[in-house]
Amino acid sequence: MSAADRQAMLSDVQDAPRVAAIPATLSRRVIVEDVRPRVDDGRFPIKRTAGERVRVVASLFADGHAQLAGVVQYGPDGSGGAGRAEVPLSPSSPGTDQWSAEFTVGAPGWWEYRIVAWIDPFRSWLHDLAAKARAGVAAGLEPLEGAMIIRAAAARAGEIGEGADDANALLASADAVSGAGDAGAALAAAMGDRLARLMFAHADRTRATTSRSYRVWVDRERARFGAWYEMFPRSAGPDPSRSGTFDDARALLPRIADLGFDVLYLPPIHPIGVSHRKGPNNTLATRPGDPGSPWAIGGEAGGHTAIDPGLGTLDDFRRFRKAAGRLGLEIALDLAFQCSPDHPWVREHPDWFRHRPDGSIRYAENPPKRYQDIYPLDFESDDWPALWEALRRVTVFWIEQGVRIFRVDNPHTKTLGFWEWLIARIQGAFPDVVFLAEAFTRPAVMHHLAKAGFTQSYTYFTWRNTKDELTGYFTELAASGAREYLRPNLFANTPDILHAYLQTGGRAAFQARLLLAATLGASFGIYSGFELAEGRAVPGTEEYADSEKYQFRKWPWSRPGHIEELIAKVNAIRRRHRALQFDDTLRFHATDNPQLIAYSKRAPDGSDLLLMIVNLDPRQLQQGYVDASFVEADAFVARDLIDDARYWWRRGWNYVRLDPEVAQGHILQIRP
Amino acid sequence: MSAADRQAMLSDVQDAPRVAAIPATLSRRVIVEDVRPRVDDGRFPIKRTAGERVRVVASLFADGHAQLAGVVQYGPDGSGGAGRAEVPLSPSSPGTDQWSAEFTVGAPGWWEYRIVAWIDPFRSWLHDLAAKARAGVAAGLEPLEGAMIIRAAAARAGEIGEGADDANALLASADAVSGAGDAGAALAAAMGDRLARLMFAHADRTRATTSRSYRVWVDRERARFGAWYEMFPRSAGPDPSRSGTFDDARALLPRIADLGFDVLYLPPIHPIGVSHRKGPNNTLATRPGDPGSPWAIGGEAGGHTAIDPGLGTLDDFRRFRKAAGRLGLEIALDLAFQCSPDHPWVREHPDWFRHRPDGSIRYAENPPKRYQDIYPLDFESDDWPALWEALRRVTVFWIEQGVRIFRVDNPHTKTLGFWEWLIARIQGAFPDVVFLAEAFTRPAVMHHLAKAGFTQSYTYFTWRNTKDELTGYFTELAASGAREYLRPNLFANTPDILHAYLQTGGRAAFQARLLLAATLGASFGIYSGFELAEGRAVPGTEEYADSEKYQFRKWPWSRPGHIEELIAKVNAIRRRHRALQFDDTLRFHATDNPQLIAYSKRAPDGSDLLLMIVNLDPRQLQQGYVDASFVEADAFVARDLIDDARYWWRRGWNYVRLDPEVAQGHILQIRP
Repeated sequence: MSAADRQAMLSDVQDAPRVAAIPATLSRRVIVEDVRPRVDDGRFPIKRTAGERVRVVASLFADGHAQLAGVVQYGPDGSGGAGRAEVPLSPSSPGTDQWSAEFTVGAPGWWEYRIVAWIDPFRSWLHDLAAKARAGVAAGLEPLEGAMIIRAAAARAGEIGEGADDANALLASADAVSGAGDAGAALAAAMGDRLARLMFAHADRTRATTSRSYRVWVDRERARFGAWYEMFPRSAGPDPSRSGTFDDARALLPRIADLGFDVLYLPPIHPIGVSHRKGPNNTLATRPGDPGSPWAIGGEAGGHTAIDPGLGTLDDFRRFRKAAGRLGLEIALDLAFQCSPDHPWVREHPDWFRHRPDGSIRYAENPPKRYQDIYPLDFESDDWPALWEALRRVTVFWIEQGVRIFRVDNPHTKTLGFWEWLIARIQGAFPDVVFLAEAFTRPAVMHHLAKAGFTQSYTYFTWRNTKDELTGYFTELAASGAREYLRPNLFANTPDILHAYLQTGGRAAFQARLLLAATLGASFGIYSGFELAEGRAVPGTEEYADSEKYQFRKWPWSRPGHIEELIAKVNAIRRRHRALQFDDTLRFHATDNPQLIAYSKRAPDGSDLLLMIVNLDPRQLQQGYVDASFVEADAFVARDLIDDARYWWRRGWNYVRLDPEVAQGHILQIRP
Repeated sequence: MSAADRQAMLSDVQDAPRVAAIPATLSRRVIVEDVRPRVDDGRFPIKRTAGERVRVVASLFADGHAQLAGVVQYGPDGSGGAGRAEVPLSPSSPGTDQWSAEFTVGAPGWWEYRIVAWIDPFRSWLHDLAAKARAGVAAGLEPLEGAMIIRAAAARAGEIGEGADDANALLASADAVSGAGDAGAALAAAMGDRLARLMFAHADRTRATTSRSYRVWVDRERARFGAWYEMFPRSAGPDPSRSGTFDDARALLPRIADLGFDVLYLPPIHPIGVSHRKGPNNTLATRPGDPGSPWAIGGEAGGHTAIDPGLGTLDDFRRFRKAAGRLGLEIALDLAFQCSPDHPWVREHPDWFRHRPDGSIRYAENPPKRYQDIYPLDFESDDWPALWEALRRVTVFWIEQGVRIFRVDNPHTKTLGFWEWLIARIQGAFPDVVFLAEAFTRPAVMHHLAKAGFTQSYTYFTWRNTKDELTGYFTELAASGAREYLRPNLFANTPDILHAYLQTGGRAAFQARLLLAATLGASFGIYSGFELAEGRAVPGTEEYADSEKYQFRKWPWSRPGHIEELIAKVNAIRRRHRALQFDDTLRFHATDNPQLIAYSKRAPDGSDLLLMIVNLDPRQLQQGYVDASFVEADAFVARDLIDDARYWWRRGWNYVRLDPEVAQGHILQIRP
């Protein structure tokens, strides 16, 4: 500010008022602060599935001691201010200025919510009148003032239809209040639910404060709850020396459906490059007939929108998808946005790849590791908008083929903003599309991908095996604001991850991990072979021996030692019990044995309460006491939904023994 | 989306790319999240005083494993992007993606800060090369690639002046790198501080990510640090039957200056209404000559810009202010935006007040209490912009008289947005103006007022007297984000609050509270009479007996039992020791006696470490052990700055005894 401006400011004391500069919002008396939930200051939406509730909390206050009122307005995005639904806010706890309200979201798509709050002169008047009545102060003008407030509401209610009825009722109340002889009588005339409801309905909101809007992305139910099964269709053939086809894989569908799975996820089904193709067990040398890694996408037969000729044709895929659908299995495809050196894009769009000083294309590296069979796409290419658009078209192509679930390979190695754009673009047209992020990386990046739009996220679950690890990790996921946007999908194994616990623990280890995955997570998955307790690894690694990533396999389904009955049982329990279909009610409970983990889940409406207890030791019987003091009844029946055994328990500590020879865990339904 | 739109989306798979819709910001690879400090998602500024530091922390990450670099840009608001200063960000701790940097703010006014971060191809290349060198992988094209990256920086450095020197140095490095025979030699040629500095200085920021800007309000030092003294100038006269004058009060200034105070705060100095004037001890009946409450502002002689005739004239006030200034005492005035029934505005602007059904103006109430001598202003009046502007002019009027500090009476009973507007408007022209909020109300409202612009805030300090109360309250103020915007001013008493602890504890209680206020708070204050250990109250209340609010008083300065020496001593220590001039280094330390409280403060540069120990029991000697394990040295000297006693202490627990007959507390300077 210059000296002249300063002088002008001083001298304008004598000037006429200059009022244009006062923003009218500052004249609104109610302050709305700290609206929750909100993600990154409202930069990203919270997530829900259709029919789920949103509990909105905020700090509401004003100057003085006037009484406040307010609502949460909510509705599908674009529904506009006037057409929105409303739910009244209530004070949460005295002295904190915290208010809250709950609403339920409907159909998938964008929703939003905001707070509108105002000074309530009627309740302020009632409050002051009550204080005066208690103190025995004579009511002077108070009845008249109350009547004026009520009459103003009658005027707002209007003169026609329902409004006129309300206005008449309000005018009658106003007369009764103004005719009251003392504070007590005025109070008596002004109390009552009907008048309170009418005064709320016809409140003066002309000076109300409106918060900014916060967004909710609403998904269909499968985004929240589902059992996933991963398989390589090329291993479905009768002969491990050549590729199984979609028609072969079709024959396996009834078995997978009978196991109770909801989603069938296929690794990439596209033509595979031949240049630098990897041989069995990730060797650099290939023999004729070695199929290569399905993630080395693109060859003579096409790229990301083509079908590997070994699997069949696009028609075969469509038939396979439909057959799965008839059995209740939804197909999930892999979006692996990278190319083999033989991908058509390498010729057609060389500028979508990074080049080295000798003109060659840069292959994937994580120094000192090299992946010569993979060319990463250059998301910073000068032609990036065309590349991004091409990748969107790939996605839309598979949507055209009826696919609505995508497992995204390594999203954390592509420009993160790309995903925010792609997912918003796709879901804007197809709100039922689900994206699962396979990003095993640092927490900040995993969380950002979830905020940016991924429906679900792979987690560190495979590497959390002890009670402390599991409790710590799931407490962290549930407690932080992350549950508003990050939905874990607990894969118990993947083609890349066969944890030492499974390699060495035998069948009981698979049972334990299945129970944990299926009950800790509303979404969970296994990769085929898990049901066979397949634990053979490349020594010293988490890689499967003779991994399907590099060769055809023929699995001996139902070989002795399999755990298919347990899987089918647990998946059936998951479908019947809403407690297992949500993540946010998880609570851990104390046990006196570090090998016994116990946790409960409730259905959101509280109707269904399950207590899970798992023996984490796959080698021997473990026994101990579990703290069931979270159950409200003094005595209750705990029925094991797996084997139908019944236990008569008391509130407090109860005895449990779990013998790997008999059962690795309980799923107990608690009923008083 | 309609069915037609949906079909269009599907069919555009075959169309030419439509790229206009991709926001370019999404193509930036670095993500900047959770920039701190920020208040209410950046809605409000953080606060600092000139010369203070701001430590900016944020989460920075990108896809893949590229190396990042970034800066905090900062400067006075309006300095523009290019002209801002920069400080490089450094990673805070491995694996967390947290980065931080510190800068120092300068002159009072608006400042801002933001983060700019980018992918660093040079350090990414170095990092990968080092991994390859460690693994003994042959360097193929790597030296050439490194040289290209360095040459690109040289091109950016430019061809003239300093840029040309940098470019030449870069080109020489590029030649050395490209000529290297192996990874190790390339690495050796690419390491070194100078090259790192040049590569950072000439980094390619064309694809950098820029965060939003966050604001800092910078105040002068007095906003953070000062000792306040409150007095009623009308009590300065020789005769308690009539008003003392500014000239009388001028005679008291040397005593107050000698006590070491910085700010002299006067309750309202304006004409006082006669209608419903309150008598001594808040009685409804007045006798002739009763002066009434100075907060009942406005009478025949004028309103908020007039001087109470009993005190003198505006010229007398100016003389008084200047005399105080010469002694190092800055005058603070009271902004009490309310009117007596005799205020000129009641006639001139009846629409600035609320009217009752009988046409009368509504007086202040907090049912069932009534304040008939006060008319609140109606901040929601239809004419509110003119009222707000008039109040701004009142403020500017006193600024014209040289006043730069205002204590604001009950700001929480006026529209909160009014203060945000008023303070921004005033400080925009006069950044040296300080506003102290006297809002004894609920935490949410107190915090909002601080966020909205108040420089300092009265606190609950007067009601926090036990060790648990004090520790809990100050831990809360320091630990939460509140320290970014709320500066406590710890008044030990006020004309309204004489706590039971002081009423009953005698001289030692005053000593204890003085020590606590002056060392727990960089800003603190006392209301006159405190130095005399004046503890007479209206029984059963916190009101002073014969309160100056309603009558003239003549104080017997230096009466036996006063604590003036201690006050002068402590204020002198505060001026010498920067540790006591800041609030954010406060730490509490354990003692084994609940009557002994111990806490330390450090100067921001760590140079000055003080340990305070106070005996909270004013009645008897207390002894015990204090945990001094926060001191890094094994043995050290603790010198009491009050009585110059020296103690030879060890790290760990040390013995302390404090006898009210001798000393109520220590201010120990810790030196190894």
